[in-house]
Amino acid sequence: MPRTGRRPGDTDTRTAILEAARRHFADAGYRGATIRAIAGGAGVDPALVHHYFGSKHELFASVLELPVPPELLLNVLTTTPVDALGATIVRTFLGVWDTPQHSERMQIIIRTAVVDEQAVRMLREFVTETLLGAVARHLGADQPMLRATLVASQLIGLAFMRFLITMEPLASADHEQLVAAYGPAVQHYLTGDLSADRTGPL
Amino acid sequence: MPRTGRRPGDTDTRTAILEAARRHFADAGYRGATIRAIAGGAGVDPALVHHYFGSKHELFASVLELPVPPELLLNVLTTTPVDALGATIVRTFLGVWDTPQHSERMQIIIRTAVVDEQAVRMLREFVTETLLGAVARHLGADQPMLRATLVASQLIGLAFMRFLITMEPLASADHEQLVAAYGPAVQHYLTGDLSADRTGPL
Repeated sequence: MPRTGRRPGDTDTRTAILEAARRHFADAGYRGATIRAIAGGAGVDPALVHHYFGSKHELFASVLELPVPPELLLNVLTTTPVDALGATIVRTFLGVWDTPQHSERMQIIIRTAVVDEQAVRMLREFVTETLLGAVARHLGADQPMLRATLVASQLIGLAFMRFLITMEPLASADHEQLVAAYGPAVQHYLTGDLSADRTGPL
Repeated sequence: MPRTGRRPGDTDTRTAILEAARRHFADAGYRGATIRAIAGGAGVDPALVHHYFGSKHELFASVLELPVPPELLLNVLTTTPVDALGATIVRTFLGVWDTPQHSERMQIIIRTAVVDEQAVRMLREFVTETLLGAVARHLGADQPMLRATLVASQLIGLAFMRFLITMEPLASADHEQLVAAYGPAVQHYLTGDLSADRTGPL
């Protein structure tokens, strides 16, 4: 969406930065990439990269064409009471991705992840360093990164079943039904007891 | 593994049947395929197909090179007490797939599923009609197919994180740690209350 007051040439500059970013992230990985090197690749000042795209992870989100800036998600996650995070994460995930346009974008990301080793490495570093790391710190529970990856495994599996292989009745279930079903499980991953092999209902 | 007493020509016949099955499953889908048509395609009697491969879903498992016959899994699932199914399903899934050879096979199946619409349809029908359907019937709970697909979504997500994108610490966690983490969530999908949006730990 173009902002008002954009000068002619803005679009070219943005495009040049995005192309340089795409190349540099592919070469250096998410973790190794720097705004300075991306600016150099685009022939612009680093300040201009920040001006157009914000932080490194916002720039990466733009390269991936993520529908929602990670900052917004982080804000939702870190302001939600810990014991309501399970339902909130599921509801937010569906709210962001479960539209025809964005679910297609998610399909592309998953398809890329299964065939492109380099893309996988970038996505893994990005997701780990931004969303998962932040959720883990917010939790204050034992084994925070294991918990964060447990949650990620359920969200990926949900996306896989709903958007890619459309397995019914899951694929057509409404959001609140899925929040009710997945919320307690995701909450268990975040704050439950992971040490014991319990049998029986939770 | 060749059985003792196999005559010369057995291997050719088996191969011809497998090739005919691969073609016919691709044309007709899992549900539409018949042993009779596959036998016709291979130029053999249907009884010979049953002799070599057993039922239609055993033949399909051979085509997919599944490491364990579905019959064996079904037997495990339908003889496990319902309130121990969560942990048993996770433990069995890891026991079957989490070896270097079989996890590579799972990677191939997932990679195929994300690019090949026809393969997806076959896998979906196969998984639904054999494993998920049987688990759902065994449960005797409300919304059995939704429950079965919830479980499938978690197992696919686990496989995706562990075998395909190897996200740590999940990718290196030992089996019993994963059984302890996932077991209660899978049990919740199978027998928990899916109707209410509960917050707080399970």
